[in-house]
Amino acid sequence: MKATYMYGAGDVRIVDVPKPVIQQPTDAIVRTVRACVCGSDLHPYHSLPAMEQGLSMGHELIAVVEEVGADVKTLKKGDFVVVPFAFQDNTCVFCQEGMQTACVHGGWYGTPQADGLQAEYARIPQADGSAVAVPGVDPETASEDLLKSLLALSDVYLTGFHAAYMAKIEAGQTVAVVGDGAVGLSAVLAAKQLGAGKVILMGRHEDRTDLGREWGATDVVAERGAEGVTKVMELTNGEGAHVVLEAVGHMPAYEQSYGIVRPGGVISRVGVPQYEEAPIGFGSLFGKNARLAGGPAPVRAYLEDAIQQVLDGTIDPGKVFDRVVGLSEVPAAYAAMDARESLKVMVDPAL
Amino acid sequence: MKATYMYGAGDVRIVDVPKPVIQQPTDAIVRTVRACVCGSDLHPYHSLPAMEQGLSMGHELIAVVEEVGADVKTLKKGDFVVVPFAFQDNTCVFCQEGMQTACVHGGWYGTPQADGLQAEYARIPQADGSAVAVPGVDPETASEDLLKSLLALSDVYLTGFHAAYMAKIEAGQTVAVVGDGAVGLSAVLAAKQLGAGKVILMGRHEDRTDLGREWGATDVVAERGAEGVTKVMELTNGEGAHVVLEAVGHMPAYEQSYGIVRPGGVISRVGVPQYEEAPIGFGSLFGKNARLAGGPAPVRAYLEDAIQQVLDGTIDPGKVFDRVVGLSEVPAAYAAMDARESLKVMVDPAL
Repeated sequence: MKATYMYGAGDVRIVDVPKPVIQQPTDAIVRTVRACVCGSDLHPYHSLPAMEQGLSMGHELIAVVEEVGADVKTLKKGDFVVVPFAFQDNTCVFCQEGMQTACVHGGWYGTPQADGLQAEYARIPQADGSAVAVPGVDPETASEDLLKSLLALSDVYLTGFHAAYMAKIEAGQTVAVVGDGAVGLSAVLAAKQLGAGKVILMGRHEDRTDLGREWGATDVVAERGAEGVTKVMELTNGEGAHVVLEAVGHMPAYEQSYGIVRPGGVISRVGVPQYEEAPIGFGSLFGKNARLAGGPAPVRAYLEDAIQQVLDGTIDPGKVFDRVVGLSEVPAAYAAMDARESLKVMVDPAL
Repeated sequence: MKATYMYGAGDVRIVDVPKPVIQQPTDAIVRTVRACVCGSDLHPYHSLPAMEQGLSMGHELIAVVEEVGADVKTLKKGDFVVVPFAFQDNTCVFCQEGMQTACVHGGWYGTPQADGLQAEYARIPQADGSAVAVPGVDPETASEDLLKSLLALSDVYLTGFHAAYMAKIEAGQTVAVVGDGAVGLSAVLAAKQLGAGKVILMGRHEDRTDLGREWGATDVVAERGAEGVTKVMELTNGEGAHVVLEAVGHMPAYEQSYGIVRPGGVISRVGVPQYEEAPIGFGSLFGKNARLAGGPAPVRAYLEDAIQQVLDGTIDPGKVFDRVVGLSEVPAAYAAMDARESLKVMVDPAL
């Protein structure tokens, strides 16, 4: 089958690999309906050292179950499923606390534990915890818009939702979203779902911020750095935002975040941080009692509710996809997203 | 009058200065009943560069009102008051949100805005917001234990309480407290007040951890660093603490904190951080969705309730004071606390 591997910065290739097989009785094998490229895939696209073996890529998927292991109880051949970007048993102590990305039997795709999902087929470990069936939808006849919105639940929308959820937004609060990528826009949509009042979107790509406005952003700030901080302070009566959702992961976005957060407010990060150390002392967080939250989204915790919201039309998170390609065009899709010619690219192996 | 100044690391002196006078109609002048030396006073005691003019020291006080400015409405001459370690109007937007240490008209003692409180008299800015009368107590006849507990409310106990409060402890949760200084021990007492289950106190001074046990610590871990982390993980079934209260402010205490916090748990800091940058990336906070909270305690927000708890005997936070000295012995008190010969020293200007 065809699968996506990265061999160094900027070097993405489609290669032929053996079709996956059941390895554990808790595994399932699924056939890809749609996959996609993530903003976080661009981090290694910028920095991965050249390597002979390559990294197996991809962690977002909607698929049809082809085969299940002997211990899989909730899924059967033919089920149409959404696959969260991390796998988990959904039963361990941390899963029960809603922290599935810390599952004691969990892990990440594109690692020695499990291959990446930008491929024709995939092995899903801990399948009972790691894939959720979508009731009443046949992927062969479903609209492309519905498929996009379901695919968006595997990572991007529920990552934006996680930022808003961990910030415990209270009704009417002012929320600033740093970053107009697909996760940032999703955070705008989620913040409105959770009752935000004013929503300030910090981003400078008008086609993207237009979708942000459609999803509920009341203000857009194109300026960055100190200028951007000044603008947000003006928009908040000099007080700052109760909640800042940081959806980038680079240091300037974090610095902007603690510049605009209100005393006692919270910065919730879901952009994978490209730094380990950062300011948190008296001059950044401590002095104004600013709180910090966030991490890898436990998509599984939110997935069933979100599937219902997509099916009943409450949310349309699939609008972040502005291009659809076949697997052979995935390397070009990385390049297009990196050049910001595309917001987020969906992959249809049938093309 | 006599007042305490610091002229460099290790150089504390009692000097004669003019008695303070009303400067603003919102000021009050108070006569010190008791003051004390704070763990945070030891930070400049270690690092202050030598200076000719000196720093006015002290920020914890119980006192009797001598005179009030024309605009002061809630206090009158003769009132016995507790003075929180920061001043505030208690009416601005941040005060209303319970973030009095971010008051737009607030500030700190021992700065050009207001002299320090280790002195015979003090000027209290924004007196209506910055001093709370204790009903029905005459400081001339009150027991020394009661005075100690009321004095502890001006900073140390309510700073420990703030750590626990910002962590939003849920009933039965496991709480680890890093540091067996007076704030750490206060955090133990506060955590029990807020419903903590297991309370693990990390400290190695047995006389101190004994008071921690009396106040509710169920376990004491004397080990530090990696060994300390291992011990706490053993005590928590390998899962970590839901809540970590960091009451030191030095980097090793912070590192210990993210080592023992549970996925999805929270580190709440009230030790004034002696660092600006620290790890918060994937390997420390982000990867396990650990949250960070804390900052200068808005003592004023909690003070009225805490005064009642002291008066009705629910809490006895004054037990952190293990020595009482006159003003002339304050330099020796700094030295004793620095050498850990004393946990916390109370100052009685009448001695």
